[in-house]
Amino acid sequence: MGRVTSRVRIVQVADGVRTERVDTLAAEEPLEIRLAGAPLTVTMRTPGDDFDLAAGFLVSEGVLTAAEQVATIRYCAGATDDGRNTYNVLDVALAPGVTVPDLTLQRNFYTTSSCGVCGKASLDAVRTQAAFRPGDDPVEVSPDVLAGLPERLRAAQRVFERTGGLHAAGLFTAAGELLCVREDIGRHNAVDKVVGWALREARLPLAGTVLLVSGRASFELAQKALMAGIPVLAAVSAPSSLAVDLAAEAGLTLVGFLRGTSMNVYAGAHRIRQPAPAHP
Amino acid sequence: MGRVTSRVRIVQVADGVRTERVDTLAAEEPLEIRLAGAPLTVTMRTPGDDFDLAAGFLVSEGVLTAAEQVATIRYCAGATDDGRNTYNVLDVALAPGVTVPDLTLQRNFYTTSSCGVCGKASLDAVRTQAAFRPGDDPVEVSPDVLAGLPERLRAAQRVFERTGGLHAAGLFTAAGELLCVREDIGRHNAVDKVVGWALREARLPLAGTVLLVSGRASFELAQKALMAGIPVLAAVSAPSSLAVDLAAEAGLTLVGFLRGTSMNVYAGAHRIRQPAPAHP
Repeated sequence: MGRVTSRVRIVQVADGVRTERVDTLAAEEPLEIRLAGAPLTVTMRTPGDDFDLAAGFLVSEGVLTAAEQVATIRYCAGATDDGRNTYNVLDVALAPGVTVPDLTLQRNFYTTSSCGVCGKASLDAVRTQAAFRPGDDPVEVSPDVLAGLPERLRAAQRVFERTGGLHAAGLFTAAGELLCVREDIGRHNAVDKVVGWALREARLPLAGTVLLVSGRASFELAQKALMAGIPVLAAVSAPSSLAVDLAAEAGLTLVGFLRGTSMNVYAGAHRIRQPAPAHP
Repeated sequence: MGRVTSRVRIVQVADGVRTERVDTLAAEEPLEIRLAGAPLTVTMRTPGDDFDLAAGFLVSEGVLTAAEQVATIRYCAGATDDGRNTYNVLDVALAPGVTVPDLTLQRNFYTTSSCGVCGKASLDAVRTQAAFRPGDDPVEVSPDVLAGLPERLRAAQRVFERTGGLHAAGLFTAAGELLCVREDIGRHNAVDKVVGWALREARLPLAGTVLLVSGRASFELAQKALMAGIPVLAAVSAPSSLAVDLAAEAGLTLVGFLRGTSMNVYAGAHRIRQPAPAHP
């Protein structure tokens, strides 16, 4: 199995002084995901929780919505020159009766819309794919709980402090309880690992939960939250315009710049409780 | 043409006070790149410098090495429901005599190696694709010049201050002169836009230059630097293990955590000049 971190000798230059030392890096390795034996995608990821990564990716793609749809996930043989398995090829076999969709078509969904390729076509495509309706989720979250989540995420991260190179995704209850945290060199992989964990734990759709990501919120991350039935997506940094458009259309709550006791609510503000009044 | 930023109404919650205001977001829109009429890829990008993005992407893929290999780049019709062109589909036509490679094969290069899929296969694939040899570049850079680049990059960024949501890539001479800066919601797109600019300006290979990226240095970014003939890649944040492996194998200089007067040199330290001695 690949390592989550690796150590290298580096030259550090600081204030005119040059020293050699050892540094810890976030590991990056390609992972090929196959579906029923057919190559589907290659993603550059940090090794670890690979089965969850593959399962979560297939939830995001609209292939899976429940654990029983998976027959097996296994590593394929893929040996290096010296004969060791690379653990970098996974095959997902679906349960009998589960249709393997034509993902060649599906993954090019942006281009099949009548309006050419545009943000609106992307939003339409996600809407038609989504099995869950997190927009109807009545959950509410207090700003105080949200404000506490980044610190809980950082505390739960085992690798970041050592490498400074990993994105994190954390899944919380609306009361702020941490359910699952995953790290990866790619932010989309960290979210897929969380969603794959939830599939395996039979927790989909993830009603009543908050997904916190350590970086920015792109369209792709909002799409993944929606496909997993997550009603609240929070990001430490900025969202993109299309992430906000998707959240607004699908009824997701999208929080950005969650820092200290301050946050921006870009969509779905009805789920953010009014702050408690100051001293009466 | 799409906008680089868009403005939305948000709810800001800060220290228990809830206010409505307008926020500026980094725009994100899909761009479909076609090669000789055939769809090649869809990338989520910030509109702007799209022709350079497409050209730089094709340099990274090993299709282009010189501007004269391109016959035309043009927007295709791709209208929204109300009839406006989305400017989100580009077609690149190659000059007569330039072969259109089978990119279906090429883009799956990780899986065609005899060793299955692993980091080493990825490194081998890049090596066989690379037209330039930046590893042989004799350029040297002083730590003082490197230390000054992040501030120059930030000063040149027009959008970041307003949105907090864009990655930047800046190309500099070894003396620290800024040649080109580009921003995008995707760090790989920002680098492709810089490389595409260089192709158009007939500057490939980019001998003697330093590429600075505002975030982390992944394998993909190191690959893009190598394919464009850039000898020094510097990042404000951490590199990945595979980025370091590629840099070491190809003879690139890879600098990470470039902050203040401090930096870590992960590969190719021979290009970093010895700091000037302290007062004699």
